[in-house]
Amino acid sequence: MAGELDLSRIDTVRALRWTGDALELLDQRTLPQQQLWHRYTDAEGVAQAITDLVVRGAPAIGIAAGYGVVLAARAQADRGAWQAAIERLRLSRPTAVNLFWALDRMRAAIARGAEVDALEQHARAIEAEDYAANRRMAEAGARFLQPGSGVLTHCNTGSLATAGLGTALGVIRAGYAQGRVSAVFAGETRPWLQGARLTTWELLQDGIPAKLIADSAGAYLMSTGAVHWLIVGADRIAANGDTANKIGTLQLAIAARHFGVRTMVVAPSTTVDLKTARGSDIHVELRNPDELLSYAGTRVAAPGVVAWNPVFDVTPASLIDVIVTEQGVIERPNAERLRTCFESAAKATL
Amino acid sequence: MAGELDLSRIDTVRALRWTGDALELLDQRTLPQQQLWHRYTDAEGVAQAITDLVVRGAPAIGIAAGYGVVLAARAQADRGAWQAAIERLRLSRPTAVNLFWALDRMRAAIARGAEVDALEQHARAIEAEDYAANRRMAEAGARFLQPGSGVLTHCNTGSLATAGLGTALGVIRAGYAQGRVSAVFAGETRPWLQGARLTTWELLQDGIPAKLIADSAGAYLMSTGAVHWLIVGADRIAANGDTANKIGTLQLAIAARHFGVRTMVVAPSTTVDLKTARGSDIHVELRNPDELLSYAGTRVAAPGVVAWNPVFDVTPASLIDVIVTEQGVIERPNAERLRTCFESAAKATL
Repeated sequence: MAGELDLSRIDTVRALRWTGDALELLDQRTLPQQQLWHRYTDAEGVAQAITDLVVRGAPAIGIAAGYGVVLAARAQADRGAWQAAIERLRLSRPTAVNLFWALDRMRAAIARGAEVDALEQHARAIEAEDYAANRRMAEAGARFLQPGSGVLTHCNTGSLATAGLGTALGVIRAGYAQGRVSAVFAGETRPWLQGARLTTWELLQDGIPAKLIADSAGAYLMSTGAVHWLIVGADRIAANGDTANKIGTLQLAIAARHFGVRTMVVAPSTTVDLKTARGSDIHVELRNPDELLSYAGTRVAAPGVVAWNPVFDVTPASLIDVIVTEQGVIERPNAERLRTCFESAAKATL
Repeated sequence: MAGELDLSRIDTVRALRWTGDALELLDQRTLPQQQLWHRYTDAEGVAQAITDLVVRGAPAIGIAAGYGVVLAARAQADRGAWQAAIERLRLSRPTAVNLFWALDRMRAAIARGAEVDALEQHARAIEAEDYAANRRMAEAGARFLQPGSGVLTHCNTGSLATAGLGTALGVIRAGYAQGRVSAVFAGETRPWLQGARLTTWELLQDGIPAKLIADSAGAYLMSTGAVHWLIVGADRIAANGDTANKIGTLQLAIAARHFGVRTMVVAPSTTVDLKTARGSDIHVELRNPDELLSYAGTRVAAPGVVAWNPVFDVTPASLIDVIVTEQGVIERPNAERLRTCFESAAKATL
């Protein structure tokens, strides 16, 4: 039937594979030129892979960390070593809260006496729930898009960042499948070029035409009227709706408000951190300045030049029109609306 | 004397050298890794060098074009060929108006019967006047900066873009020499990386500490309170003050207004185009998408990915706090204030 959505027919790339005794990760540092899978059999390896951006994207990091704990449990009977693995994994990245959520879930299972097989079931559940959440978010978010919408996204929020369709990219996939999205633009996302390397590659494989733009071209693109929605993911959503996401999101959200473009944040409820009151309480990761000074091993800036390389920023809730999660959709987000949504959702799952 | 400015002691790099029978250009495509000078002896070569970005920056393009006409006049006695050279040079870049201004000045001299030597004097005058204008702008712009100011600039507006200290970078140099500027941040300026390659290199040679940031980090930087002024150059200023400048300027100016950061545009009066009523009338150059699909010569995006690569945008006058030219300073620019400034300046030079 024309316009009917069959998201299951969208066959996406995958970021990770659990084999039962190892975690395999598609190396996102060399995509799209090289598709290298690495195999990890211990928690230390998984932690380093997260730090080194072999795997990235808040939901995918959480899933990888869950399997990292399983690998620790398989390696040693000593439950103290399992806790040590959790502590090691916790240090791998500071901003995305899904990592801490997944580790807390594994820790709670251990505290309840779970053995290796039960831990593996928990890790598999984290992955399966993310897959299902992606579909629900895609459907819920796409409903906001009027037919013929132009959308701009930033960073990579697709199958390489999640267990399924993606968060923001899932909404864009669903919107395209339904004829609601007519044009997709993706910022290249310096310094790591997730947009140039990953997002446009994912969309190309789906047959969704997308145009790459410089990160600095977003406002000018909006000024032409070509964009109706800015759709992004999130690494952490504070209790008041302030949202940490890839550096550049704040700048685009300010421009969007200036031009009357609406801003949608799409993230699983595991990204919502009710224990963090507001955005200013979120730890924003500063990464190695070399990421800005060089590219693919080639030095760009002169010797001696220094850089400041924050890789996330915080967009205040006041600039966000709607937050889409699998547990509910929050328009004009604020602390009360988030509390209402997630406390009632928590009660419903008791 | 402490705090006294001696701009003549700032010894800057140079973008071009006129030898009397050739124009030599420092190839800005390979800086800062390689310092290659190329020698041009005909107008065609100069035009192609402008198109290919061997020389860039609105004032430097105008100067190079003036010498290009001299080379045409030296090569052939036929004055029709001189006009043809002007037409050829006119097609080399579409957005910066200084190019057209310089060519119109050379054309007018030809129409008045100027021979080769007189044309050379005109071309030298264009260069010398730009050098002098840089100093006047640097002094006039720096007066706006409170001691201890943090400044953010975009693209390269220094000695590599002009005949002297630069436009926006001249103000920053003067402000630093006077103790008014305590911190300088420069956006890397995708796709061509003028900030990463050129601006930080110029400032390093001056001993001015500067930090490179991703273009998308400007708003987040402003949110930290580290920046008080956004200081940029211009490629064309319309009669109402709307300003075409490097892609990304609009996005930063919107963020600046959002955070209470002030925006200064610094450009010689030759950048003001009173014949263009407003920004929407300015032709914005779209360049080859390959500039975005690759990074520093390395292919980044997957085969088949397409890009949209506008290299300028237009910032409305309403987002600009002050325009600094060598003929006067216009606060809260609008059509009336620009007309008053430049019509009275025109009368004064009659």
